[in-house]
Amino acid sequence: MTPARPSAPAPSPNLALNQLVDRRRARGESLVHLAFGEARLPVLPQLAARLAAGASRAAYGPVAGAEDVRTEVAGYFTRRRQPTTADQVVVAPGSKPLLMALQLTVPGDVLLPSPAWNTYAPQARYAGKRVFGVPVPAQCGGVPAPDALRTALREARAAGGDPRLLILTLPDNPTGTLAPPALVRELGALAREEDLVVVADEIYRDIVHDPDRTPFLSPAEVAPERTVVTSGLSKTLGLGGWRIGVARFPAGDTGERLRAGVIAVASELWSTLAGPMQHVAAYAYAEPPEITERVRAAARLHGAVARAVHRIAVDAGATCRPPTAGFYVYPDFEPLRERLAARGVTDSASLAGALLDGSGLVVLGGHLLGDDPHALRFKAATSLLYGDEEQQAAALAADDPTRLPHVAGELARIAEGFARLLD
Amino acid sequence: MTPARPSAPAPSPNLALNQLVDRRRARGESLVHLAFGEARLPVLPQLAARLAAGASRAAYGPVAGAEDVRTEVAGYFTRRRQPTTADQVVVAPGSKPLLMALQLTVPGDVLLPSPAWNTYAPQARYAGKRVFGVPVPAQCGGVPAPDALRTALREARAAGGDPRLLILTLPDNPTGTLAPPALVRELGALAREEDLVVVADEIYRDIVHDPDRTPFLSPAEVAPERTVVTSGLSKTLGLGGWRIGVARFPAGDTGERLRAGVIAVASELWSTLAGPMQHVAAYAYAEPPEITERVRAAARLHGAVARAVHRIAVDAGATCRPPTAGFYVYPDFEPLRERLAARGVTDSASLAGALLDGSGLVVLGGHLLGDDPHALRFKAATSLLYGDEEQQAAALAADDPTRLPHVAGELARIAEGFARLLD
Repeated sequence: MTPARPSAPAPSPNLALNQLVDRRRARGESLVHLAFGEARLPVLPQLAARLAAGASRAAYGPVAGAEDVRTEVAGYFTRRRQPTTADQVVVAPGSKPLLMALQLTVPGDVLLPSPAWNTYAPQARYAGKRVFGVPVPAQCGGVPAPDALRTALREARAAGGDPRLLILTLPDNPTGTLAPPALVRELGALAREEDLVVVADEIYRDIVHDPDRTPFLSPAEVAPERTVVTSGLSKTLGLGGWRIGVARFPAGDTGERLRAGVIAVASELWSTLAGPMQHVAAYAYAEPPEITERVRAAARLHGAVARAVHRIAVDAGATCRPPTAGFYVYPDFEPLRERLAARGVTDSASLAGALLDGSGLVVLGGHLLGDDPHALRFKAATSLLYGDEEQQAAALAADDPTRLPHVAGELARIAEGFARLLD
Repeated sequence: MTPARPSAPAPSPNLALNQLVDRRRARGESLVHLAFGEARLPVLPQLAARLAAGASRAAYGPVAGAEDVRTEVAGYFTRRRQPTTADQVVVAPGSKPLLMALQLTVPGDVLLPSPAWNTYAPQARYAGKRVFGVPVPAQCGGVPAPDALRTALREARAAGGDPRLLILTLPDNPTGTLAPPALVRELGALAREEDLVVVADEIYRDIVHDPDRTPFLSPAEVAPERTVVTSGLSKTLGLGGWRIGVARFPAGDTGERLRAGVIAVASELWSTLAGPMQHVAAYAYAEPPEITERVRAAARLHGAVARAVHRIAVDAGATCRPPTAGFYVYPDFEPLRERLAARGVTDSASLAGALLDGSGLVVLGGHLLGDDPHALRFKAATSLLYGDEEQQAAALAADDPTRLPHVAGELARIAEGFARLLD
């Protein structure tokens, strides 16, 4: 049974809020934009030079990407305990099209963490799939507990569903946390038992705040034969607007079949990643020292500011998972439910509305991410707090960026906004 | 009734053949590549400079594209008798994703000319649509005759289909011809009667070989309230590998609804066109003199070579519609059926196979384009005959590019290959 495709597609809520912010700012409103996961950082000059040098790449070239870029991407994964050859790689204009192509390639329905990044579910619907959400307990770092996943599978099948695809986000968006290795092992075993294809969205992998104390295990290490990894340069290098995404497919039969399917979809939906962007990707994925240093500095900055917002949420009385990666926090105002109810705030939509109208804080309500709409949770992206380009450069260099006047001012506004909820 | 999605998607046949050519050439084979519609021309230095200058556009920005690029694209259409404002425009990484988004946005099934460009039908299947083909007689310039379209509509409905979308290609790929204005008027009226949305793929519009003698009328002029026009820079400026596409939506309610739907799909499938490419598009769509001059020179070159291949096909005994736009010819070897049958060539697949194996000519059999597989027709793209970058520049400048040694040599090989079919 294929559900009806929505007759009037709605835009991605984060991108829609982004445009709302632009419009209201153009009218002179002062907003703190916490609803858009863009790592806004200055473009490294070496990347700009590389883009210019790539201008002559104006022919279509192979759908999967040219051999040079696929070789460098393979090296990137190989250095992360995922041995990879160039013929396991596909590059694309962002990881979104790759995720869509995977949804069109893997038959059956899809299992999603709840909450999850807001794009997986609409893509599933465009692909004619049913979506089955599995709650993500605080201790799980953004992935489902195996027992809950088993229950969801059973219930989905009882309801006529046919879940074949499990999407996991490591580190997680929206919670800014990372699944512990033991849990990843259990999920890998479960995926094998249940014959699920795993898509591991690892686009935040290089933004683990303290890599030495935060062990990362990929599903591609524990279930290599069935795990496709997606990633890109948008988050780690602040290149969202350059649209560079990559996918790593398993070695072996399943992997070759999946990759052939994705390339087939790509050939009809977008042809290939723009040649000059392939030239950029070949350079960045080789990870020369200036790239590694920038990625490290960015992760440190993202961590410092995300932890500060986490502290503000906790100080305001919310519970909140301590962020260990990316640039998100996901506070839960449940402990304040009674006091909030007295002010008409009873669910995530009214909570987000009160923060916007009362304090100019723009957040993404949990209901937009597949979370229980009655819960008092939202996602706050902390990566647009670094100011203009000069301030971003200062933040990247600062020992404690939260003390820079611009960042401190934004943090103070967030604290005031949370306090005003309860005034 | 939604047809089953193909379980193992097959790659786009033109891109697949492209890769086959690369592999066989790498093995030392000498092939004449007539199966890929790439306008391989040197990149204008001003375009390269503009790409470099756009490096700072690294933020996501609006899904539809920034205001500056949409304003210039609107000007481009306005100068072509399609008055347009910036808020009717969406830019994207190529026109393929825009066409896919339109298929996901317009409900119901789709009517396609037969033959048609090989991407429309697979996109329809990815969108869960049924495809109903309508034959394209030689005198129609690549669009269906109104009576045949009416018949197809009736039969599709009788078969449980619900055609709501009509895709027309003006000028046409694969036939290299252009629908006459009177026919476009009739089809516009029919679309209105039958409440069809028209997608006019006008990506070859600026490659009409002799614009003074080839009147162009867009469906957007005769049925403006229901026609979406798609285009891009791949063909006119030889920028296929830069992936720059545009769509123009109708003014008014239907147009706004369609555009909102496409933007919603875009927000989930690809986010936006890469910022540096938007910077390029803003420049190119403003049509400064150096762009206009290059487009004119390219159209002249494409025309001269396409006409030469047309002559070769006719001299070999095929019938062939005289090309008036783009860089394609679509010969029909029906008059030679008996002689070909004696050599085991009985349909478009065996015809393409004989040309490849016998003479190293790579063509796209009509069966890959939705044409009758028993017919002896194929598409030959003539735009890869211009040689290396230096030879391309010479071809652009030549009074008669078909006399340049490299081009003449390729043309001779085609003539020999056609002759060898009948040896």
